Amino acid sequence: MRLSIRYAFDAHLHLRRGDMLRRVLPQTLPWCDRALVMPNTDPPILTAQDAEAYRQEILAAGRSNFEVLMTIKLVPSTTPKIIREARAANVLAGKYYPKNTTTNSADGVEDIHSLYPVFEAMEEIGMVLCLHGEMPNTCCLDSEVKFLGTLKALANDFPRLKIVMEHISTEAAVRTVKRLPDTVAATITPHHLFLTIDDVCGGKLHPHQFCKPVPKRRPDREALIDAAMSGNPKFFLGTDSAPHPQSMKECAEGAPGIFNAPVALPLLAQRFEEEDDRAFPQLLEDFTSRFGAQFYNLTLNQRFLVIERSPWKVPLEYDGIVPFKAGETIPWKLA
Amino acid sequence: MRLSIRYAFDAHLHLRRGDMLRRVLPQTLPWCDRALVMPNTDPPILTAQDAEAYRQEILAAGRSNFEVLMTIKLVPSTTPKIIREARAANVLAGKYYPKNTTTNSADGVEDIHSLYPVFEAMEEIGMVLCLHGEMPNTCCLDSEVKFLGTLKALANDFPRLKIVMEHISTEAAVRTVKRLPDTVAATITPHHLFLTIDDVCGGKLHPHQFCKPVPKRRPDREALIDAAMSGNPKFFLGTDSAPHPQSMKECAEGAPGIFNAPVALPLLAQRFEEEDDRAFPQLLEDFTSRFGAQFYNLTLNQRFLVIERSPWKVPLEYDGIVPFKAGETIPWKLA
Repeated sequence: MRLSIRYAFDAHLHLRRGDMLRRVLPQTLPWCDRALVMPNTDPPILTAQDAEAYRQEILAAGRSNFEVLMTIKLVPSTTPKIIREARAANVLAGKYYPKNTTTNSADGVEDIHSLYPVFEAMEEIGMVLCLHGEMPNTCCLDSEVKFLGTLKALANDFPRLKIVMEHISTEAAVRTVKRLPDTVAATITPHHLFLTIDDVCGGKLHPHQFCKPVPKRRPDREALIDAAMSGNPKFFLGTDSAPHPQSMKECAEGAPGIFNAPVALPLLAQRFEEEDDRAFPQLLEDFTSRFGAQFYNLTLNQRFLVIERSPWKVPLEYDGIVPFKAGETIPWKLA
Repeated sequence: MRLSIRYAFDAHLHLRRGDMLRRVLPQTLPWCDRALVMPNTDPPILTAQDAEAYRQEILAAGRSNFEVLMTIKLVPSTTPKIIREARAANVLAGKYYPKNTTTNSADGVEDIHSLYPVFEAMEEIGMVLCLHGEMPNTCCLDSEVKFLGTLKALANDFPRLKIVMEHISTEAAVRTVKRLPDTVAATITPHHLFLTIDDVCGGKLHPHQFCKPVPKRRPDREALIDAAMSGNPKFFLGTDSAPHPQSMKECAEGAPGIFNAPVALPLLAQRFEEEDDRAFPQLLEDFTSRFGAQFYNLTLNQRFLVIERSPWKVPLEYDGIVPFKAGETIPWKLA
């Protein structure tokens, strides 16, 4: 079986910089026409200038018709002026990281209320707020659920601010996003449709299945699959593909992040087909291309690629980076 | 501060065999006078003969006044005859592992009821039943709690069988063991008094803090500390010190098990003192030496060692094995 499908919009992508950028971007280009690129690089993307320099670096490593959508990182020193300048330079979103919750977040925000003037500016000029929605200093199993009160408060306090709760991992987050106004959406990763906590630290410890937020229980995974396939435009793809060198994963203190770019679309096709073999092509395209574009006010991608149901073995590594499902045989591939 | 304390009885110890045995045993001998040695070696200890050969191997690697107490592994092929022969050869306990729950448990038991004739024989001749109390094919966060029904059934069905629920990790297990008759006890590890799930897969992934059962939440850890310090003789030390070569921990599929032998007693002194700086010496000795000996009908150890409150930095490795708290400075040490 072959399927012609629109190129995807990856609404949550880590491309890193320099050498790492050049190693990982080629795995996104074959199936992705545009991506919203995360700003937690080292050093971070904090201003219009940073974003423009980073955009040029990505374009130079990429392809002329690959649309690079930029974000800046919201840190304690971010001001409304920085926001306005960034928006004028075509930065689409600002990303909130609670302090010390994920890769390169030591400069994150301790009190989200300190960012309220920044959120006001974002609301006024139409910049999207992307949230790493985990409550700091909270058990990793509960941190997303405990953050949902903050999400509700933000939606209430900034009724015209567009908000994306990124990489949701719980049934409770699905329910909350559904109930909130249409200004609030969520991204879902491919790996959260496959993993539970047992795949991280059940029988064995699996660094290449370790990410933030940590995968939860089966009912959470089921709720995410249902949401991704519901046709509800609040839920769309953000791969959160997050590469680390093998040596940073297989060590005494493994970094969170799953490099899924080489397998994201094939895995989504697999999961969607398993759940609904008749409706899945349309549901898949809506999830990977349409709903994200709608939320970010982008025109719909007009290029198509072909994927086919033809088993292939995922390579053990891509240039020193171990991908999700390394060494496993999966049923769909890019044609 | 210096403290004279009885040598400990480690009621749950993995010594492995051959080269590994010779590398790890020296870390137990300085503070431990006797240990109940677990049978999930490769190959496993299944019979009186296996146990005797293993005992001789340990004695040869050990010290003349180190008392080696043996267990056999209960597998589908275990018979009442095997039990009787083992008991006659001075094997103290039989260890039940559910299939595929921990290191070398692929030959474990699928249906615990199939072992009922074996449990009857154990009850009759006074052999202790040690349980790896996790329900197979269950989320690692819930598997111990889901096993508690089995524990209650065993206590009810075999009222004279002595049962030890090993390495308990949850508040629910503490409560259940307390409520059951005096035939039921539990071991507690030093690491479960220090870790929560966040130390395994919170911010970073920590293979040297990964064990089975996986550490749970803070209230669970608090309940374990309370139980260990309660003076209730149902709760006693089993370190579950479980060495793996560094390469088996820092890899794509890390093995469960924490090598805590070098730090077990110092860490217990630290935790007990933090919780109750006046009563802790007696509570500590009861937990490490007395209550386990009582349960197993052993005479009390009569040798003493000295520990002192004097900070030391835990080595990064012991002959290729990374210990618990490697590289950290801890307040107590063996004098």
